[in-house]
Amino acid sequence: MAMEKMTKEECLAFLGTGTRTGKLATVREDGRPHVVPIWFVLDGDRLIFNTWHSSVKALNMQRDQRVAVCVDEMEPPYQFVSIEGRVTMSTDLAQIKNWATQIGGRYMGADRAEEFGERNGVEGELLVTLTVDKWIGRKNVAGE
Amino acid sequence: MAMEKMTKEECLAFLGTGTRTGKLATVREDGRPHVVPIWFVLDGDRLIFNTWHSSVKALNMQRDQRVAVCVDEMEPPYQFVSIEGRVTMSTDLAQIKNWATQIGGRYMGADRAEEFGERNGVEGELLVTLTVDKWIGRKNVAGE
Repeated sequence: MAMEKMTKEECLAFLGTGTRTGKLATVREDGRPHVVPIWFVLDGDRLIFNTWHSSVKALNMQRDQRVAVCVDEMEPPYQFVSIEGRVTMSTDLAQIKNWATQIGGRYMGADRAEEFGERNGVEGELLVTLTVDKWIGRKNVAGE
Repeated sequence: MAMEKMTKEECLAFLGTGTRTGKLATVREDGRPHVVPIWFVLDGDRLIFNTWHSSVKALNMQRDQRVAVCVDEMEPPYQFVSIEGRVTMSTDLAQIKNWATQIGGRYMGADRAEEFGERNGVEGELLVTLTVDKWIGRKNVAGE
């Protein structure tokens, strides 16, 4: 059995499973790539995450809205989703706190959602919405 | 307890553990970032991986040797290493097969190393060596 493509729906299900983190790639002013993990949740087929306004990734996204995100399963037979799109950013504190709470719940457990919402829903954080225009998902990368 | 920095030695140990994959970020000709998983092994403090010569990442690395790689642990308290550096590429088939065998052993098990070495040690594959000039590692990202 060879590597198989995922449908967009399969990509979304894969992205939304458990505590899988995204690896967000952006481009620095001098053209070098930058990649770090993000915590995110899905809003339909968009990705929502927070970032501190002066982080490298925030500065990169303010300069160029084009980003890529990869999520993978690091055990045989290996799977991954790699998406590309554009971000918009908001400083609406109520929205930031609302989404930070959902994100906290995903990654730290529902009983700690509020705590992480308070911690990350603060002035200086940005709410980032990624609208995806390219979906790539592969199952069974090991090809067996 | 807050988020903690890793030393370079801790970064290397983290990168080399188990079947953790790298997420390789490169930049497309039009300036968009691209990120996909890679299988790699360490050679001292350099990363070694294979790629097909006409893959998006190979084309990007042929144009611009500056890359970034992120590896993370996707469970509380969350950890990651994010490195930046420059790649060189080789078409030496004996070297490619040698490293493809080691890489196959890491990700598919020692008993299958030869099989994956044969499969990936072929004409058209490139051997990529990443020399790192920036090491970032963080333990306990959840900050507890």
